[in-house]
Amino acid sequence: MQAAVFNGPRDIGIANVPDRHIVEPTDAVVRVVLACVCGSDLWYYRGQSPHAAGDLIGHEFIGVVEQTGPAVQTLTEGDFVVAPFAFSCGVCPNCEAGFQTACLHGGFFGGDGLGGQAEKVRVPLAEGTLVKVPGTNHSDEVLRSLLTLSDVMGTGHHAIVSASAKPGDTVVVVGDGAVGLCAVLAAKRLGAGRIIALSRNPARQAVAREFGATDIVPGRGDEAIEAVLELTGGIGADATAECVGSNDSVATALRIARAGSMVGFVGVPHDVELSIGRLFGRNVGIKGGAAPVRAYIPALMDDVLAGYINPGRVFDFETNLNGVAEAFAAMDERRAIKSLLRVSSIA
Amino acid sequence: MQAAVFNGPRDIGIANVPDRHIVEPTDAVVRVVLACVCGSDLWYYRGQSPHAAGDLIGHEFIGVVEQTGPAVQTLTEGDFVVAPFAFSCGVCPNCEAGFQTACLHGGFFGGDGLGGQAEKVRVPLAEGTLVKVPGTNHSDEVLRSLLTLSDVMGTGHHAIVSASAKPGDTVVVVGDGAVGLCAVLAAKRLGAGRIIALSRNPARQAVAREFGATDIVPGRGDEAIEAVLELTGGIGADATAECVGSNDSVATALRIARAGSMVGFVGVPHDVELSIGRLFGRNVGIKGGAAPVRAYIPALMDDVLAGYINPGRVFDFETNLNGVAEAFAAMDERRAIKSLLRVSSIA
Repeated sequence: MQAAVFNGPRDIGIANVPDRHIVEPTDAVVRVVLACVCGSDLWYYRGQSPHAAGDLIGHEFIGVVEQTGPAVQTLTEGDFVVAPFAFSCGVCPNCEAGFQTACLHGGFFGGDGLGGQAEKVRVPLAEGTLVKVPGTNHSDEVLRSLLTLSDVMGTGHHAIVSASAKPGDTVVVVGDGAVGLCAVLAAKRLGAGRIIALSRNPARQAVAREFGATDIVPGRGDEAIEAVLELTGGIGADATAECVGSNDSVATALRIARAGSMVGFVGVPHDVELSIGRLFGRNVGIKGGAAPVRAYIPALMDDVLAGYINPGRVFDFETNLNGVAEAFAAMDERRAIKSLLRVSSIA
Repeated sequence: MQAAVFNGPRDIGIANVPDRHIVEPTDAVVRVVLACVCGSDLWYYRGQSPHAAGDLIGHEFIGVVEQTGPAVQTLTEGDFVVAPFAFSCGVCPNCEAGFQTACLHGGFFGGDGLGGQAEKVRVPLAEGTLVKVPGTNHSDEVLRSLLTLSDVMGTGHHAIVSASAKPGDTVVVVGDGAVGLCAVLAAKRLGAGRIIALSRNPARQAVAREFGATDIVPGRGDEAIEAVLELTGGIGADATAECVGSNDSVATALRIARAGSMVGFVGVPHDVELSIGRLFGRNVGIKGGAAPVRAYIPALMDDVLAGYINPGRVFDFETNLNGVAEAFAAMDERRAIKSLLRVSSIA
């Protein structure tokens, strides 16, 4: 089968690798229909975080179950499924509490031979991990939106949930990548009264508005903080979503947050120094992390299938598996918000 | 009047200073009945944080209103009141949201001539700040408990609230000072199913058990973490209260917390490096800070007056204002959990 591989910084290739197959009795093999490139893939792409050379990559995919291990009861060949970016057993205390990214038996796609940017993926703990999609006759728009449930839509939602956003709240979203835009959509879906998106990019501003942003703040750092304070009568945001993971973005989020409020952070942190003094002085809390998107897929899928949300709008570049290098480059150069890979047809 | 003053590290004296008087129309002057020494007072006492030499000290007191400014309508001479350690207007957006320590017009007792370890205190923003106690004929036990509402009981409660503790939860309290012990009591009051207190001191262990601790872990650091994990089936605490403020205690709290749970932190942080990577990886959140005890006084006072909670049990050393130096020394040398100062009689 063909699969995207990481050869080294800014060098993504396609390799012929052995077909994935059942290893553990709880495995399934999924034939990938759609996959995509994540903002977090850019860290190793840019050489800013390690990744084994020659290893498979990609952790977002939807597809069709092709094989199941003997212990898999609830899935069968032909099922159309969404895979979250982490696999999880579904029954340990952490999974039961809804934090499947901390599953006692789980792990993450995107390495160790478990690459989602590939024709097929071996899915460990398939019953706990995969979520079956009702029906197969979905529009391309719906398929694109279902793909976002693998990561970015669930992650944006996690930022808003972790920020303890309540209906009517003024929510600020720091970061205009696909996750930040999905956080805007999640805030809207959960009833935010006002949604302020920080973005300097016209294309992203447009998606943010479409997703429900009521105000756009084009500045960064002090400028953005001042603008948000002005928009909120000097008080700050009721709930703040940090969707970048840089030291500057976290610092901005902490200063935008009103006293006593929460910052939900989902950007994978890189060289972030967290000022506990700033947290202490204003009673600002921070929570988030690797989103347990598995917990969120069912409810978000209902809303996608009902046409109530359309997070697939974040894909503004598409190609096939052979074009994966260009898919990375488009995001690296910020020509694309998020790159879609068409791998096979659903039927 | 007489007042405790900070002369320099480990040098607390008593000075004759001019009687406090009304400065702003929103002020009141309170004659102090009981005051006390806070664990946070030990930071400047030990030279570990700055404090102006010659300035008044102390931020916890209950007393009787002696004078009110012309703008004060809801308080009158003779009212018996509890003062929170911070003064606040009560009407700005931060006060209305219950975060009076972030009051847009407020500040803190314990310096700038506003010392609670004194015969009298000028209380700015008196209407927003002071809480009137019904009746004056209270037992000494009740008075001592009312005094804890100035800070430690409300602060311990804030740790538990910030940790999002729910009825039935397993709560771990890091720190066996007065605040930690009050956090145990607050956890019990809010319905925790199991309360694990970290303490190596037999006298403090006894108070912890009296306040509701079901388990005592005498270790620290790795030893304590292992013990808590063993007690919780390897999962960790549902809610964790950090009541020390040191780098080690915060690190311990973050590791004790189960995936997806909150650490409520109320220990004033000193040289704490917060690992955002650790927060991210396990979805552990942190929230807390300078407790808005003003928000908590009414409900906690009801329970004190009803005899349902007895946080005054944390006082195990007492003297009068002239003995304030010894009151500090007893806490510094860990001979006392918390030192009470009897300043005047209520009548």
